[in-house]
Amino acid sequence: MKALVYTAPEQLEYRDVANPAPAPGHHLVRIESVGICGSDMHAFLGHDDRRPAPLILGHEAAGTVTGGPMDGTRVTINPLVNCGTCRACRAGRENLCSKRQIISLPPREGAFAQFVAMPERNLVQVPDHVSLDVACLAEPVAVGWHAIRLGIDAMAHDKVQTALVVGGGAIGVAAAISLIAQGVTDVTLIDPNSLRRDYLNLGPYVDVQAPAEINGRMFDLTVDCVGYDATRASCCAATRPGGVILHVGLGGGSAGLDIRHMTLQEITFIGTYTYTAQDFRDTCAAMFDGRLGPLDWTDTRPLGDGAAAFGDIREGRIAAPKIILKPA
Amino acid sequence: MKALVYTAPEQLEYRDVANPAPAPGHHLVRIESVGICGSDMHAFLGHDDRRPAPLILGHEAAGTVTGGPMDGTRVTINPLVNCGTCRACRAGRENLCSKRQIISLPPREGAFAQFVAMPERNLVQVPDHVSLDVACLAEPVAVGWHAIRLGIDAMAHDKVQTALVVGGGAIGVAAAISLIAQGVTDVTLIDPNSLRRDYLNLGPYVDVQAPAEINGRMFDLTVDCVGYDATRASCCAATRPGGVILHVGLGGGSAGLDIRHMTLQEITFIGTYTYTAQDFRDTCAAMFDGRLGPLDWTDTRPLGDGAAAFGDIREGRIAAPKIILKPA
Repeated sequence: MKALVYTAPEQLEYRDVANPAPAPGHHLVRIESVGICGSDMHAFLGHDDRRPAPLILGHEAAGTVTGGPMDGTRVTINPLVNCGTCRACRAGRENLCSKRQIISLPPREGAFAQFVAMPERNLVQVPDHVSLDVACLAEPVAVGWHAIRLGIDAMAHDKVQTALVVGGGAIGVAAAISLIAQGVTDVTLIDPNSLRRDYLNLGPYVDVQAPAEINGRMFDLTVDCVGYDATRASCCAATRPGGVILHVGLGGGSAGLDIRHMTLQEITFIGTYTYTAQDFRDTCAAMFDGRLGPLDWTDTRPLGDGAAAFGDIREGRIAAPKIILKPA
Repeated sequence: MKALVYTAPEQLEYRDVANPAPAPGHHLVRIESVGICGSDMHAFLGHDDRRPAPLILGHEAAGTVTGGPMDGTRVTINPLVNCGTCRACRAGRENLCSKRQIISLPPREGAFAQFVAMPERNLVQVPDHVSLDVACLAEPVAVGWHAIRLGIDAMAHDKVQTALVVGGGAIGVAAAISLIAQGVTDVTLIDPNSLRRDYLNLGPYVDVQAPAEINGRMFDLTVDCVGYDATRASCCAATRPGGVILHVGLGGGSAGLDIRHMTLQEITFIGTYTYTAQDFRDTCAAMFDGRLGPLDWTDTRPLGDGAAAFGDIREGRIAAPKIILKPA
């Protein structure tokens, strides 16, 4: 099959590789749509020790099962493979499984390829009225959905009315539309990139602004979808007493939080990572029945042009929060 | 009346001051027992901008109402006076009231004195079988009780089985006994002071250890009752994936948290401060019916010897987590 292989820092090669051989209980999925994630970019730049070259990246994928009893079924893929037996799995927190694997992290190859092999429990059937370019967004949208669920749960005694999302990439957009779908209708999203701000139209409940425009306003919930010192500091300063900071971004650093302020004002910081299996299914259901909006904030490119797409994203030349690659 | 007045950094004077004049709705309480808190020590050293000299410190007090319809009633004092009308107060989070006042912070004088004036709603009646030396512990114990309640609430979906308490002062002890009273029976408390460790006997469910002894063990819940960079780092390293760090101490700094680790392992950090009015009442009920143990980890001194007691605490010469001062 053809695959886009990460061969060395800042090097991607579109070349022939062996087809995956499905293990027992796995299905072969012919990939039709696969998104480029910030973590793929991080790996491409050589900054992710968990993803050493050579490796096929990509974990936001949808396609059609080929062969076996599910042959022809259109599916979107939950890329997180868990053991099912540890304490975290038994508690329904599969994302904290001590043996968790994700496609695009060894030992599992990713989905920038014509085929991927996946366990059946990781496949969610896609209804006919939903395109696979939309369906492959289930993974990044589930990251936002999960974070927002944790934040609303943490504030169960004091209903969330206002929220700030920091970062207008796919995860920030996912957080914003998940807030609305989960009942928070006063949402502000900030991003310093005017190209991105001009592109985004997320409906009447999401106010897209430049960071300086929030100007001292306080929010019940803040969501850091970037994860650098400066964005944590912005969230910390904009969270009201008793409020919650959701930390989704993996930018880097450990500064930015004002610990004394957070203690005296009882601010909670929640680290959030991926999603549970139930969150993934709930996200798919919300996508499929329209609660998450038109999901049209994407561009598509042929998988063979993937290296150029990485370059364009890196240079900030892309307005859309998500580029979807299409294997031939 | 006689009072112990903080007159300048590291200066306390036992001297005559005017009796407080109770405002409408306030009662005059003759103080019989008043504890020295770490925050009193912080102010005494000149490190608390919120407590400028001259000022009467002290906010952990019990005594007997003098005059009025409650004359002769033995009470313990909730020192936190709130507005009752703001969003936080209406949500039952009086500790986050935007107009909150605490005795020993201007404009309210503290309880290192023969009398304090308090609103009736801040007084909890003490049953005859409970001494006022025990009753005055309601305030510091409520700080621990409140923190543990927040932590158990945050982990409602995944029962807390093990907990680590960092710091063997009164707040650490309060957290440990509150854990047990709230159903967590595998509690480890660490403190570097061997004098303190040798003194503490908190029953069969609390293992008191030197910090090095925990040696890589992981806990569902960790409680930082100190609040310095090093203790936050200890808590962060000892909290299992999906676990919660409760941050009660106000030591200082903003480092110690490994943000990437907390994000990938979904660790929650909760800033906690004082207690709600309901927590204070719940703490009193638990103290009065014996659920919090014998509450015998105190020493007493005459209020007139208060300056010497501050010196002894500062030099680490006190084994007991709490010194109670007794006005004449």
